[in-house]
Amino acid sequence: MSGPARATHHASSKAAVLDVIRAAGTISRVGLINATGFTGATISTVVRKLIDEGLVVETGRAESTGGKRRVLLQLNHSARYAVGVHLDHAGITYVLTNLGGSVVARISRAGAGAAEPGTVVTRMADEVGTLIDGVGVERNRVLGLGLVSPGPFSSTAGIGLTPPSMRKWEDFPLHQALEQATNLPVVLDNDATAAALGEHWSGGIGGTAAALYMGTGIGAGLVINGVAYRGSSGNAGEVGHICVDANGPECWCGARGCVEVMAGPAAVVAAARADPVLARSAGLTGRSRSVSSDFAAVSRAARRGEPSALAILERSARCVATAARTLANIMDLEVLVLTGPSFAIAGSVYLPVVRDELDRAFFSRAAHGVDVRLSRSAATASAIGGAALVLQSELVPLHEGLRLPENLADSEPAPLPAEGA
Amino acid sequence: MSGPARATHHASSKAAVLDVIRAAGTISRVGLINATGFTGATISTVVRKLIDEGLVVETGRAESTGGKRRVLLQLNHSARYAVGVHLDHAGITYVLTNLGGSVVARISRAGAGAAEPGTVVTRMADEVGTLIDGVGVERNRVLGLGLVSPGPFSSTAGIGLTPPSMRKWEDFPLHQALEQATNLPVVLDNDATAAALGEHWSGGIGGTAAALYMGTGIGAGLVINGVAYRGSSGNAGEVGHICVDANGPECWCGARGCVEVMAGPAAVVAAARADPVLARSAGLTGRSRSVSSDFAAVSRAARRGEPSALAILERSARCVATAARTLANIMDLEVLVLTGPSFAIAGSVYLPVVRDELDRAFFSRAAHGVDVRLSRSAATASAIGGAALVLQSELVPLHEGLRLPENLADSEPAPLPAEGA
Repeated sequence: MSGPARATHHASSKAAVLDVIRAAGTISRVGLINATGFTGATISTVVRKLIDEGLVVETGRAESTGGKRRVLLQLNHSARYAVGVHLDHAGITYVLTNLGGSVVARISRAGAGAAEPGTVVTRMADEVGTLIDGVGVERNRVLGLGLVSPGPFSSTAGIGLTPPSMRKWEDFPLHQALEQATNLPVVLDNDATAAALGEHWSGGIGGTAAALYMGTGIGAGLVINGVAYRGSSGNAGEVGHICVDANGPECWCGARGCVEVMAGPAAVVAAARADPVLARSAGLTGRSRSVSSDFAAVSRAARRGEPSALAILERSARCVATAARTLANIMDLEVLVLTGPSFAIAGSVYLPVVRDELDRAFFSRAAHGVDVRLSRSAATASAIGGAALVLQSELVPLHEGLRLPENLADSEPAPLPAEGA
Repeated sequence: MSGPARATHHASSKAAVLDVIRAAGTISRVGLINATGFTGATISTVVRKLIDEGLVVETGRAESTGGKRRVLLQLNHSARYAVGVHLDHAGITYVLTNLGGSVVARISRAGAGAAEPGTVVTRMADEVGTLIDGVGVERNRVLGLGLVSPGPFSSTAGIGLTPPSMRKWEDFPLHQALEQATNLPVVLDNDATAAALGEHWSGGIGGTAAALYMGTGIGAGLVINGVAYRGSSGNAGEVGHICVDANGPECWCGARGCVEVMAGPAAVVAAARADPVLARSAGLTGRSRSVSSDFAAVSRAARRGEPSALAILERSARCVATAARTLANIMDLEVLVLTGPSFAIAGSVYLPVVRDELDRAFFSRAAHGVDVRLSRSAATASAIGGAALVLQSELVPLHEGLRLPENLADSEPAPLPAEGA
């Protein structure tokens, strides 16, 4: 039993049509037939349903191309919302997006730290309430919550093999606890995959694309023609454990010389602390508050023009660039986006080094280049991806019974601008 | 415009149904509906067409499950054939497979060597004739020819960025020349991708799988649920250029310390030639005939128990294992098959080293292991994959007009056993 036909069979035709309308902005029924390959009868039925449920609205007619002018369809952006939560050791980021994937509310709170998972989940439920109530969105328009976190996840139950900072979350029944605390359907995914999906939704990356993610660790999310590639157990894209030096130091994953242990934020911070002059000038002589705040201090020192700080970051960037090239060679990538909190801070140092490496040594450069970009929403891409997971998921049918009033658009919160804007 | 629905639309429903029947062995129409997601009416029409064309036959009825006993369908294996050709510097391998992917004829001839591409193509056309005529298959039952070669291919026109040994094939209009010389439709692909497809067809690897291919160079082919993953330009899986030592020697690809230049067959041979005692005992003191024959000589020395030969191969195997782990981490692999001519020779040294590396340090080992195997047809997997490309491709419609006689099965050549058998 093989492949694609079977996969499509299991995907909801409604979700597929909704995704095409979202991506197109406005589109006619004939356009939908061409884009999806569904029959006219199927499109007609699905669109009628989507309109009845208030998810899609008719919005005027296309320019005539000779025959009858075609009615255009578009998403009713304020018909539904989704919550995206990025849970990390150092911080928790919350976003509320509308059906079109635009961020309408965003808050950041303290990270999981050393607190008990149960305590953190209770606090998260409060903070989700603050997020939703802050923009006056009715609870019954919120489809669900996408929680993303450093993976890998072994199942929908909770976080699997975790980095050391979050080890106490292993075996905690996160999925169930969060559904109970928030009263929302919950989907889980790892932060790097979610970031790639977030870049696809908010940044419009297409084709064969990857998000190279650097938070406290290093990972990658893979998106092929708009669909996340997750691998056999949801753990694809583990580029942080690419070996760049077979005789290098041991990594927490069990291997040696991984790019994460050689060049990740913790390695950058350790190198800066080992240089007494730099450590003093960057304020790194005391006890560490967190790897991320120390990494930010090194980046600030580099921006102030301290050569030793810049040299440490550039050494890290060359290692990361080598791993990025391996990823590009294996996946034959068209687009690589640098995203995640650490690239939000120091992306300007890493971007030219990664670009140069791929221009110089990407294996298939004779056929095509790789478009390397810095994310416009590097700090929140994972949380946005969490919300996108909800919007893309099978959660829509859960709210099928819900009919929305006609005057729905009146109370729509305005989308927030991108981080860089 | 996104994803899967669109992709399925463009794939031929006939090819999809044919592939499901092939994979299932025997299957009912209801089974086809369940497996493909197509409607009963579509399956009914497509199956009727396939029977009319002689590609599929009815073959009795399934056990009753209460209702009417269902008619079973199976491929008519001898209805069509495909030629697979693996063109390499050192040798050319030809296989003829039937519609089920079983090899019914196989020959090996001298490689491309330093000869002019035009001369080689003329010879290849003769050798394809020998292959087909040798088992008495009629020319009009041969669907086409799949030519595989060290890639990458920049288009269907010819070989793109080639390894040094085949540089004169760059810009040669291979596709056109071969179609003219053989009078068969031709498809091209790189040897590693074809090997993965060949393993899928002949070895039944499923799920998220890769073929780690070692010929003169090192590459990988990726197969996800039976479908080759080719990347944005057909060059995915370039694991030979994973960096294992940033300060290592320069590779022909432009980077430094690639696994191919550090540990590929040429590196193994160079290390053996640099050891005077080993070089003498392995017969490597004279001028080299080819990297492959020298590599075979080192492997024979290792099998004879010469510790220095074994040490060189094991050092290579550890490097290759590191690259294999990177590939497994990025793709989240379930299955990894070692294949290609060099693993056909020395696979018994590499297999335990690669297995051990993945058991010990595969990132997602808490979630699942990676099944590492040595191919049963390592020497011919690429050629078989070339034939599979033809069988899977859109070439079938080219022969749609062809009706076959009823007594077709009479003259079927018997499939050859696997290499190891």
